[in-house]
Amino acid sequence: MAEKLTLRSEDYSKWYTQVVLRSELADYAPVRGCMVIRPYGFALWENIKEGLDRRFKETGHVNAYFPLFIPMSFLRREAEHVEGFAPELAVVTHGGGKELEEPLVVRPTSETVIGEMYAKWIRSYRDLPVLINQWSNVVRWEKRPRLFLRTTEFLWQEGHTAHATREEAEEETLRMLDVYADFAETDAAIPVIRGRKSASEKFAGAVASYTIEAMMGNGWALQSGTSHFLGQNFAKAFDITYLDQANELQHCWTTSWGVSTRMEGAVIMTHGDDQGLILPPRLAPTQVVIVPIWRDDGQKSVVLGAVEQIKGALSGIRLKVDDREELSPGRKFNEWELKGVPLRIEIGPRDVEKEQLVLARRDVPGREGKAFIPMEGLRQRVVEMLDTVQQALYDRALAFRGANTVEAANYDEIVEAVNGRFVHAYWCGDPADEERLKAETSATNRCMPLDQDTEPGVCAICGKPATEKAIFARAY
Amino acid sequence: MAEKLTLRSEDYSKWYTQVVLRSELADYAPVRGCMVIRPYGFALWENIKEGLDRRFKETGHVNAYFPLFIPMSFLRREAEHVEGFAPELAVVTHGGGKELEEPLVVRPTSETVIGEMYAKWIRSYRDLPVLINQWSNVVRWEKRPRLFLRTTEFLWQEGHTAHATREEAEEETLRMLDVYADFAETDAAIPVIRGRKSASEKFAGAVASYTIEAMMGNGWALQSGTSHFLGQNFAKAFDITYLDQANELQHCWTTSWGVSTRMEGAVIMTHGDDQGLILPPRLAPTQVVIVPIWRDDGQKSVVLGAVEQIKGALSGIRLKVDDREELSPGRKFNEWELKGVPLRIEIGPRDVEKEQLVLARRDVPGREGKAFIPMEGLRQRVVEMLDTVQQALYDRALAFRGANTVEAANYDEIVEAVNGRFVHAYWCGDPADEERLKAETSATNRCMPLDQDTEPGVCAICGKPATEKAIFARAY
Repeated sequence: MAEKLTLRSEDYSKWYTQVVLRSELADYAPVRGCMVIRPYGFALWENIKEGLDRRFKETGHVNAYFPLFIPMSFLRREAEHVEGFAPELAVVTHGGGKELEEPLVVRPTSETVIGEMYAKWIRSYRDLPVLINQWSNVVRWEKRPRLFLRTTEFLWQEGHTAHATREEAEEETLRMLDVYADFAETDAAIPVIRGRKSASEKFAGAVASYTIEAMMGNGWALQSGTSHFLGQNFAKAFDITYLDQANELQHCWTTSWGVSTRMEGAVIMTHGDDQGLILPPRLAPTQVVIVPIWRDDGQKSVVLGAVEQIKGALSGIRLKVDDREELSPGRKFNEWELKGVPLRIEIGPRDVEKEQLVLARRDVPGREGKAFIPMEGLRQRVVEMLDTVQQALYDRALAFRGANTVEAANYDEIVEAVNGRFVHAYWCGDPADEERLKAETSATNRCMPLDQDTEPGVCAICGKPATEKAIFARAY
Repeated sequence: MAEKLTLRSEDYSKWYTQVVLRSELADYAPVRGCMVIRPYGFALWENIKEGLDRRFKETGHVNAYFPLFIPMSFLRREAEHVEGFAPELAVVTHGGGKELEEPLVVRPTSETVIGEMYAKWIRSYRDLPVLINQWSNVVRWEKRPRLFLRTTEFLWQEGHTAHATREEAEEETLRMLDVYADFAETDAAIPVIRGRKSASEKFAGAVASYTIEAMMGNGWALQSGTSHFLGQNFAKAFDITYLDQANELQHCWTTSWGVSTRMEGAVIMTHGDDQGLILPPRLAPTQVVIVPIWRDDGQKSVVLGAVEQIKGALSGIRLKVDDREELSPGRKFNEWELKGVPLRIEIGPRDVEKEQLVLARRDVPGREGKAFIPMEGLRQRVVEMLDTVQQALYDRALAFRGANTVEAANYDEIVEAVNGRFVHAYWCGDPADEERLKAETSATNRCMPLDQDTEPGVCAICGKPATEKAIFARAY
């Protein structure tokens, strides 16, 4: 614990892994590629879930649960889908002591099995729209795993909706993208770019995929949530039909959308610094940690008395008192900084006398982030400070993204800028351009931002006419 | 929908399946043995989760997440454990397009993989107790599946704790049994018997297993939650050790405890009647359904105006307005009765004039359960009535269990009474007695109740000396 973290500037990837392990967010599981989400990391996930689930319910969605196992034949019904997922599948071949007649796939995503059920449930236009979400685990075999970012098993939510018209389904696809963007920016303090994926980056089986892309602390991109317009592809593969008002049989239009435990990776890498995590107050499992300081038993009882008073004043705020005897205050400060608790209260006997305490911000290191605060009016000061920190994290991330985003007019400019930056450049839509750039720089096309007001121009890579810009970046 | 349910007295099992499917709690999945939990059933599960999770957190537990896949070799480290679970395992043999070197088991329960992690995390007595719970899916291959009661995949929570002493671990085991009993009785309105499992019925690898047993509407028993004292069995198999205060290496003492989606089966079968579900108000996804009644557009706007007023008065209560045009009020009543909504409000134009409405209790059919209620003071009346229904369901279930419980002094009396009843009888502890009874009547030893004050006697089955009574019953 006392050992210093690797600096981000030295080895960002090593810093990331150290932060995840030492802050006890997660650990490696015995099975390669899998992870254990430890209580601290799971409490963070519970807060992420709550923020998303509330928004899903506010937009009319309900939760359900579909099975883990999918017959292999289901995946084959949608040609692009099986092609995309086949290399990542985990396959159950034996059950109950016998070899199975048909192997079962551990769900990598649930469009197929949910499609099968929707086909059974949906009869008439009166049954539409169907707006269902599920919180579950999924498995995609991962050759180069990274905690939270790429794990063979991960937790996520997957929304699956069915609609009577193309327009409604397209609207839903973008509505949920906005829900994700709102969650990321408001709760996680992560500025995101909403955009459309290119053909080569879209979900296997989708007509169009949309993404929220965030910039991590090393200037790389992280796809933090996706929303797919599936057209009638799955409706036709699974025969999801309804009788319309004229009593004619029609195929539904469907969507799917998901956010996963990867979001924790986004939180870590957007806000963290060389001391460790910095958690946005709205998601932090512990918003305020109190470190009481004393030298003898007399002081101890005085200080712990004041702590009780503070706890009373701050009820409803997620707080922890660290009164462990075996650690020095300095060690405790380091530990809670590593764990990214947004605010720290220090209080010693002198402070009690003066009816004050020290309030320290995690996001502003050293003296500058510390202030003496009177006990009177404490609650309001703390509540305000939590909001201040939340906003400051967002502002800082936005400024960082701004400072690391460039416009590029030609291929050389893209190549020069793309490692550690978001590069905006005209792109004509030709996958060959993406392949070339990826082969030479490992950078990919992250998305065509939805919010762009672009005059027609020429592709920065191949010079063909282009009507919009894309963002190119290295990505996780 | 209009088709009548099978009567419970005619075919209880058929009634059960019809209720589950028609009320849309769940559906069969494409893979045999698996189920889909539909939105209504999942909303019920969310309320069950919330009631349990709150109690877990109040007793100092935190949530985490451990991996779905467990190396086959882990299960073998605890001899009884692997013997108990081997016949029920689903096995992944291929991942990422390759055959795996070691097959992976889809977790049937997580003692082994959690044991492995605890061995890594726990160093000193300061790290104890570890009090972790996880909400997850598990897989146990099921040859004779039944929706909610026995499915190949099910959802549950599994608590896993590690302690410094035997006493603490035993205390924890019984504490969680009490938590389960409190949840079942207070939230689910299901009276339960807390008891110890016999050697032949205990968890594979446990020193002692405890259970809450509930009586279903046909007099059969349903094991509705279990808590296991694991002694040092798993601590030794996985080397979970700690340094005590004298700096000596000791093995931990561990427990595990679980409640699953089976609890929904308990709710259905404890309270349901020939019209369908009756859900206890504390768990009901919809507590009150409002059915507005009108004949023409003029009446419609008057009545819907009053409905808005009612919704305002009942904010915070989970309610639904059924204003569908295509169904008659009678059809709507049947549907919401089938779905077990505890209270129904009917309101027509005459009621609006008189500033009143009709409040109907689901648990008291016909006229007797209906009353005119003034709009004034509505909220209080509804809140009180929800409590009344909650209590009435518990009382009725308790009375039913009382009326269907008998004492038996000898084997013939057990055999005569045991189909459809709980039979209390002295038992000496010899598994041969259990085998004989099971072979001849299909009844099993449900538990030795903890709350018994029994003088020594003789075993009702074999006549050997016995110190306590057991409950024998047919069980799911």
